[in-house]
Amino acid sequence: MRQAGRYLPEYREIRARVSFLELCKNPTLAAEVTVQPIRRFGFDAAILFSDLLVPLEAMGLDVVFTDEGPTLPHPVRGAGDLARLSTFVPAEKTPYVLETIDRVKGLLAGTPLIGFAGAPFTVATYAIEGKTSKRFVETKRLFYTDPPAARRLLSLIAEATKAYLLAQVEAGAQAIQIFDSWLGVVSAEDWEDFVFAPTAELVAGVQAAGVPVIYFPNGATTILDRVAKVGADVVGIDWRLPIDEARRRLEAAGAGSPGKTTCVQGNLDPALLLGPHDRLERVAANIVERGGRQGHVFNLGHGIYPDTPIAAVERLVHTVRST
Amino acid sequence: MRQAGRYLPEYREIRARVSFLELCKNPTLAAEVTVQPIRRFGFDAAILFSDLLVPLEAMGLDVVFTDEGPTLPHPVRGAGDLARLSTFVPAEKTPYVLETIDRVKGLLAGTPLIGFAGAPFTVATYAIEGKTSKRFVETKRLFYTDPPAARRLLSLIAEATKAYLLAQVEAGAQAIQIFDSWLGVVSAEDWEDFVFAPTAELVAGVQAAGVPVIYFPNGATTILDRVAKVGADVVGIDWRLPIDEARRRLEAAGAGSPGKTTCVQGNLDPALLLGPHDRLERVAANIVERGGRQGHVFNLGHGIYPDTPIAAVERLVHTVRST
Repeated sequence: MRQAGRYLPEYREIRARVSFLELCKNPTLAAEVTVQPIRRFGFDAAILFSDLLVPLEAMGLDVVFTDEGPTLPHPVRGAGDLARLSTFVPAEKTPYVLETIDRVKGLLAGTPLIGFAGAPFTVATYAIEGKTSKRFVETKRLFYTDPPAARRLLSLIAEATKAYLLAQVEAGAQAIQIFDSWLGVVSAEDWEDFVFAPTAELVAGVQAAGVPVIYFPNGATTILDRVAKVGADVVGIDWRLPIDEARRRLEAAGAGSPGKTTCVQGNLDPALLLGPHDRLERVAANIVERGGRQGHVFNLGHGIYPDTPIAAVERLVHTVRST
Repeated sequence: MRQAGRYLPEYREIRARVSFLELCKNPTLAAEVTVQPIRRFGFDAAILFSDLLVPLEAMGLDVVFTDEGPTLPHPVRGAGDLARLSTFVPAEKTPYVLETIDRVKGLLAGTPLIGFAGAPFTVATYAIEGKTSKRFVETKRLFYTDPPAARRLLSLIAEATKAYLLAQVEAGAQAIQIFDSWLGVVSAEDWEDFVFAPTAELVAGVQAAGVPVIYFPNGATTILDRVAKVGADVVGIDWRLPIDEARRRLEAAGAGSPGKTTCVQGNLDPALLLGPHDRLERVAANIVERGGRQGHVFNLGHGIYPDTPIAAVERLVHTVRST
């Protein structure tokens, strides 16, 4: 999950001076907020500070950040809109991301850096809806009324994102996380029909560079058997399902190699950081135990809440390290 | 799912004259909109038109309907707020619901009527958040900071809802559906710790009146093995998981009786009604086949979209009846 954020006073201080968009596009500041959580908490890896919509803007769509979050004034609603999108050369269109990585590498003393991007489906929902959605009506309308256009859109996003992530690896990212934030609204049938192929293609394309890929199918553990076939090195698990059960479902579906532990990441409900420490510690320790102490990247099951107390994060890190 | 709604011109005509709240509390109009879809489409059963928050208001909380939906100006945020809530006598506090049922029974020529209420967790989220939520921060904060208060709240809602639903049965409802619209945000651990007991208690309490109970754990098919233990006669399945897989997961968890088909309801993604008829027909027919032609109540996997064309619903009914 994103580690930087409004729960950190040092992040809020920077955000008081620049907009979210300026922050994403300013390598000095983006590198600074990427490294802030590492300085404060000593996490085992840093994750690049950026936004899901960066590649979409680079592909040619207008992106405007408003108080309600990012919006696209001219969303993709049909095959005719696809002409406005193209793959891009990251060094030309998103040099600030690559420069951010370069700067982060200079600031981090040995802590690995995880690059990131949104998964084709999630990025496509922004392209189609034009904003964060709740019911994803327009996305599904496009899927059902013009399946070839929907598939071309996802495939184009996968191709552009692959180049974008390979450039991140070249710039120094040592692993890649692909966020499928909105996968939870997809049926098993639509997964097969639209989402699986471009997602698997993207994962394989990044793995070809020799880095591990973490795929996070948020809200979609009910189709974990299908998700297993994407072939990610690590599958991120939200907080809904115990992590040992998630691993068993992945393994039953043929994920991982025989005799080797299937790698999972997660899965503490970030809301636990808002409550008392005794419960937080008990649940976190339980997750560590269920994770089996190998092939498990301890993490939150979703993004951290803005009003999370610093002391709770400190306590969590201590609990995970000492369990 | 609710059958009445803005997709029907005859419903919009009534709503142009009265507010949503007035509609819920006016037995003549509420009965009329309950019966409208039956007249138009000839569904096999009608579902009572009402609102999830009716019992909460009857329990003593102020409910105000705004343009953004129902809001509670004084939500429940701690143990001290529980004193404002109590169980209630349906004939005294919600006579309009019982009168609506009575009128519906007079209007329906043999079509069964399904009564309904929200499940304890879902109703509790409205009591705690004060409105429709996205991340349910306050709900979880209460769960984690004061578990006994959270449990008392859910238990109180379950008790009040039981009386409310038994009164619906006495008034003539021949089955009951319990909607857990927001269950998808609950972890398996919190399900065990907070949600399971009051939900199972409510289901059993209504079953004691001799009517079948449909429980709809929206967005929570990943914990269907736990949900099975609620003991509902029918489990509603959203559109995320094929209905035959859902039934197999329920049966593997011990739902139903040996040798008898486990009953499921669902599970067409309502977004399919917005697309072309050929896809709608193909997916609907597939659901009928997977449902196995017994122990399956064909239904949408979630609420119908306001801009659903009438012709699509007609086509769907035809497809289901002729498959």
